[in-house]
Amino acid sequence: MSLDLFFDPKSVAVVGASRQKGKVGHEVVAGLLAGEFEGDIFPVNPNADEVEGLTCHPTLKDIGTTPDLVVIVVPAKLVPDVMNECSKLRVKAVIIITAGFKEIGDEGKRLEEQIVRIATRSGIQVVGPNCLGIMVPDKKLNASFGGDLPATGAVGYVSQSGALMTAILDMARANDIGFSKMVSIGNKSDVDELDVMVAFGADDNTKVIAGYLESITDGDRFVRQMEMISQDKPVLLIKSGGTGAGAKAASSHTGSLAGNETAYEVIFDRAGIIRCPSVRTQFDYAQAFVHQPLPPGDRVAVITNAGGPGIMTADAIERKGLTFAELSEDTIAKLTEALPAAANVQNPIDVLGDALPDRYEVAMDVVLADPGVDSVIVVLTPQAMTDCDETARAILRAAEKAPGKTILASFLGGAKIDDAIGLLRRGGVPQYDSPESAVTTLRVMNDYVAWRQRPKRVVKLFPVNRRKVEQIVERHIRRNVREIGERESKEMLEAYGFATPKDMIATSVDQAANIAEQLGYPLVMKIWSPDIIHKSDIGGVRVGLNNSQQVVDAYELMMHRVSKKMPDAEIHGVLLQEMCKDGMEVILGMHRDPNFGPMLMFGMGGVTVEVLKDVSFCLAPVTSQEAYDMLARTKAYQLLEGVRGREGVDIGAIAEGIQRLSQLVTAFPDIQEMDINPFVVGPEGTIPVAVDARISVEKK
Amino acid sequence: MSLDLFFDPKSVAVVGASRQKGKVGHEVVAGLLAGEFEGDIFPVNPNADEVEGLTCHPTLKDIGTTPDLVVIVVPAKLVPDVMNECSKLRVKAVIIITAGFKEIGDEGKRLEEQIVRIATRSGIQVVGPNCLGIMVPDKKLNASFGGDLPATGAVGYVSQSGALMTAILDMARANDIGFSKMVSIGNKSDVDELDVMVAFGADDNTKVIAGYLESITDGDRFVRQMEMISQDKPVLLIKSGGTGAGAKAASSHTGSLAGNETAYEVIFDRAGIIRCPSVRTQFDYAQAFVHQPLPPGDRVAVITNAGGPGIMTADAIERKGLTFAELSEDTIAKLTEALPAAANVQNPIDVLGDALPDRYEVAMDVVLADPGVDSVIVVLTPQAMTDCDETARAILRAAEKAPGKTILASFLGGAKIDDAIGLLRRGGVPQYDSPESAVTTLRVMNDYVAWRQRPKRVVKLFPVNRRKVEQIVERHIRRNVREIGERESKEMLEAYGFATPKDMIATSVDQAANIAEQLGYPLVMKIWSPDIIHKSDIGGVRVGLNNSQQVVDAYELMMHRVSKKMPDAEIHGVLLQEMCKDGMEVILGMHRDPNFGPMLMFGMGGVTVEVLKDVSFCLAPVTSQEAYDMLARTKAYQLLEGVRGREGVDIGAIAEGIQRLSQLVTAFPDIQEMDINPFVVGPEGTIPVAVDARISVEKK
Repeated sequence: MSLDLFFDPKSVAVVGASRQKGKVGHEVVAGLLAGEFEGDIFPVNPNADEVEGLTCHPTLKDIGTTPDLVVIVVPAKLVPDVMNECSKLRVKAVIIITAGFKEIGDEGKRLEEQIVRIATRSGIQVVGPNCLGIMVPDKKLNASFGGDLPATGAVGYVSQSGALMTAILDMARANDIGFSKMVSIGNKSDVDELDVMVAFGADDNTKVIAGYLESITDGDRFVRQMEMISQDKPVLLIKSGGTGAGAKAASSHTGSLAGNETAYEVIFDRAGIIRCPSVRTQFDYAQAFVHQPLPPGDRVAVITNAGGPGIMTADAIERKGLTFAELSEDTIAKLTEALPAAANVQNPIDVLGDALPDRYEVAMDVVLADPGVDSVIVVLTPQAMTDCDETARAILRAAEKAPGKTILASFLGGAKIDDAIGLLRRGGVPQYDSPESAVTTLRVMNDYVAWRQRPKRVVKLFPVNRRKVEQIVERHIRRNVREIGERESKEMLEAYGFATPKDMIATSVDQAANIAEQLGYPLVMKIWSPDIIHKSDIGGVRVGLNNSQQVVDAYELMMHRVSKKMPDAEIHGVLLQEMCKDGMEVILGMHRDPNFGPMLMFGMGGVTVEVLKDVSFCLAPVTSQEAYDMLARTKAYQLLEGVRGREGVDIGAIAEGIQRLSQLVTAFPDIQEMDINPFVVGPEGTIPVAVDARISVEKK
Repeated sequence: MSLDLFFDPKSVAVVGASRQKGKVGHEVVAGLLAGEFEGDIFPVNPNADEVEGLTCHPTLKDIGTTPDLVVIVVPAKLVPDVMNECSKLRVKAVIIITAGFKEIGDEGKRLEEQIVRIATRSGIQVVGPNCLGIMVPDKKLNASFGGDLPATGAVGYVSQSGALMTAILDMARANDIGFSKMVSIGNKSDVDELDVMVAFGADDNTKVIAGYLESITDGDRFVRQMEMISQDKPVLLIKSGGTGAGAKAASSHTGSLAGNETAYEVIFDRAGIIRCPSVRTQFDYAQAFVHQPLPPGDRVAVITNAGGPGIMTADAIERKGLTFAELSEDTIAKLTEALPAAANVQNPIDVLGDALPDRYEVAMDVVLADPGVDSVIVVLTPQAMTDCDETARAILRAAEKAPGKTILASFLGGAKIDDAIGLLRRGGVPQYDSPESAVTTLRVMNDYVAWRQRPKRVVKLFPVNRRKVEQIVERHIRRNVREIGERESKEMLEAYGFATPKDMIATSVDQAANIAEQLGYPLVMKIWSPDIIHKSDIGGVRVGLNNSQQVVDAYELMMHRVSKKMPDAEIHGVLLQEMCKDGMEVILGMHRDPNFGPMLMFGMGGVTVEVLKDVSFCLAPVTSQEAYDMLARTKAYQLLEGVRGREGVDIGAIAEGIQRLSQLVTAFPDIQEMDINPFVVGPEGTIPVAVDARISVEKK
């Protein structure tokens, strides 16, 4: 979807233009004029002759030509009529600023649907309704009521909140941030966040994509497209409304652990999107990505005129997991020669409180030339001798000589550093109001580099018995049975290459004793009922049965207890299962997010998974590398590798299990949730066993 | 220690006063004059007649009277002579601004020691050397070279970095923060951070204590005194230099888990100190504590003119664990009446984008009157109709009517909100540049309230056999043996009321078999050697021995393996121990921090403690409540309580174990480190068992 008519129209009509200052219909026309838009501006209003000196047309038709872009500001009820007019005139791009649609309830929703129908039928692209409009500074286009155009720059901004955009515009001016384009998408009845970001991706003037989102329209498409866009341009998003809503009831462990927030984390990670906790951090990151090269590595040097802030910066570097650069002997020698004796020539380099700009400059030149330094954070406090402005200029000179390294500044102070900050920012060296923010930004840049460098995603496919699974799933869907029983769940897993323990069902105590003798000891006995999900909670699981007498006793006791605790449950008997050999219990699971699809989960098994919540997620289908990464992201990963004399387990076998699970849930979109719990893994070279499994299906 | 002569001197001499602008000796005199100091100012310099129009005296003696305060700015080498002069004149308070002492190495250190000797002998209090000086705005005292005096306010600031103080002064001006006193303590050769903070604690003009520290001189005293001060006034500290250094080698689990950072967390928590990650957050917190009442509870309401930022605020409230206020029916009815139909009358209250000041005011009045609301965050974006300044005034009016509730503002923008922000801040409503920062500040205020309301600390003492422990510890100290063996470690624990498993030592295979028959089965066998600490790593532990044949086999194999792996270890035999009955394994430990004393640790036992690092710390001696809190702070706490059909353990018994351990390590300062690992705990009503223990001692 090209948005060219929105971003570079030759003519703009404003339907609902008004002479009355303060009215939106006036502000939009005034904004276009004040921005010095070079195309034609056509105010439209049957009750006015002119607006701001421009001839006003009674209707769109009266203009006599079809405008490239129509901005609609008439009351909501009148919008469908205007849309019909647009349709007749073959207008192709419309911005509906008017509010009072979906956001106010059912009536508004119907009105919005009516508009969408007209638009779809007529091939009209619609931005809005309920939006602030669009700004394109370098085209001098201000089709909005957001006030003055911002400075031209390299950030493309998309906002789902018009009000926040007004705040951002004001903050941007104060922070020397410029924009290529700003789009307020409002209710996104047609053009949505992804359409805008795809357009930004293709736009030569946009170097960094930023935005504020409250929802994502099409999760699946979003992930696939953003993954490609992020490869070229960093995407910085604020996503609000994440918490709370995610706490829906879910029957699987995976479901209950995979909240709405988790889904966003997982898909942002997959798509390489950098999540920003606030507008301030978004600006922090944006200025670095726009003006500075990506860091070639994570080794950071610090240059400061004050010990304290130097230590604070060093602390932050360590806390954020970056590497504190070790300076070469050559660098140290040169610094020793160039700086006073009392200066600290080790990282953090302290040029001392009386440093003039020359000391900063020489320190930067020397340190930036060190091949062991990837980025530099320059810290300054405005002391008695400090010349802030000239130091800023010295930093800019030094930066120019080292185009391949990332340079960030943190001048600390107020009025004394104000001009210097402006010099730095306009000169392309980002300024941070605390060293911590500079370090956090470097961390984010390094993470982005790592994301871009990750190997090409190749998903391995295993030979499986697809047909078998299809039969089970389809039968359950047909009969409208959501939970697949343990037995068939295991059959499905076997069809996808998982090993499961031998087991048999006994429907009477005698049969149980017989089966036990066949399977051999020790055995596990589990209650066999379609109505009981958490078997162990009600005494429906017994482990370590060692002879037929124990099996008989356990059977009778279990029947007694379970039927007492759940008198309404339909009980078919018990499942007898060979005890799994020793191994570590882990859990593999999947929860299908309604918007983004199958979220795979890995965690340490048993009760621990619920208590410690030491789990990791990834969107299926996963690559081998991603499966390994899921393991490595858990805190208990060392336990898998083996620690302090304890033998490790076959990590590759777990990773394969995750990939097989991934293949299963990708092939069957009707599988809504599943847990393989426990998945028992032994040492290197052994085959892990899916001891228990729960799968639920529902027609997608 | 009273610092009155520093804070309110009637006369100040500046030794090393200079006519040359830019020189420190000039800036200090000029600073005193510019601050309009009302007492006498005596420049001292044998080579000048006058400085800034003031008569210059060749020496201190020539002044003819003893000044209350002497500021020394002469070169380091000359400082001892000046100090001797001060001594003769019975000067009582000296600020040494001069640098070139301890911070430059051994020579400077000797010079500093010389100064301290003179000071101690003569009863002179010294601030510095290597400091910026002292500022007391309301006394018009600027005894520093930090530039202009800041505004008078209620924050007392102590800084270990002079340079950072210059930055803070500049930032404070830009953020409308005022100070009661600012003290740069430099090398703190005499007056240290605690002296200053104690003085701030007693100072009526200081409402909030803030500071930047790199080290704490006397940890023990610091904790005791700050605990009392925090009870009255919030203490906001930046502590840098925490990371890295803490990674010293330690032989116990507790030691290796208790880094330097942990110690600061623990003692700040004990002392009620609020740690600030940056100057910006310190200012964020300070303005709220100075101007707003402490929140009566954690229920937060949000008033906004924009949906997006409203949601962002709500997200932050949930993330930070505060309660999103539920408005009463009455409140909702009143809001419905007062606000337009499209407004959101539920929390977050949206007064809509076209809101004028009156809408904000009525919303605030109604919401602040709701008894279910403890604090309000007011969010504003500068939209087309918004009158920022008048809205600020409306907020101030509403705030005045609700003196018992905490009100914070977050106006988002740049130039458009600049004046309004100033109005808010000067009017006593703190302003935050992101809703997140406002929420974080509220969280910190709530935590401080909770800290102040915690019950009085009463440490319970158990009847114990002190003498027994004393004998063992003293013998080890005398013989210079650091590690106390397993057997005697357990004797020490028994003396302090811990149960330990029955055990006996066998020095031959036959003896092992005999002892085994006496103790009964199952048994644990452990290698018995003073040289082997981590027994399980080298095959020195076997569990579950069920008969004498297994004991014989295990003995021979263990001797063979261990002597192969550690050929130099002196092996005395094995310890045979009854197997502990089933229970949960936890670890209790202690690591003595060189500065702050005994840090107790609790964690889930076994390998997990090292891998998951799910542990909590507290400074001994602990109260019963603190012992329970240590348990509750671990992530695995639910496991102790019992979860999903698993029986819980006797939590009270663990808490008692922690208190007994606390009593032991408090009574014996020579105990440097210890682990009780595992400490096996059974269900309610059972007695936990200290299965293994390691204690190391060293003369304190």
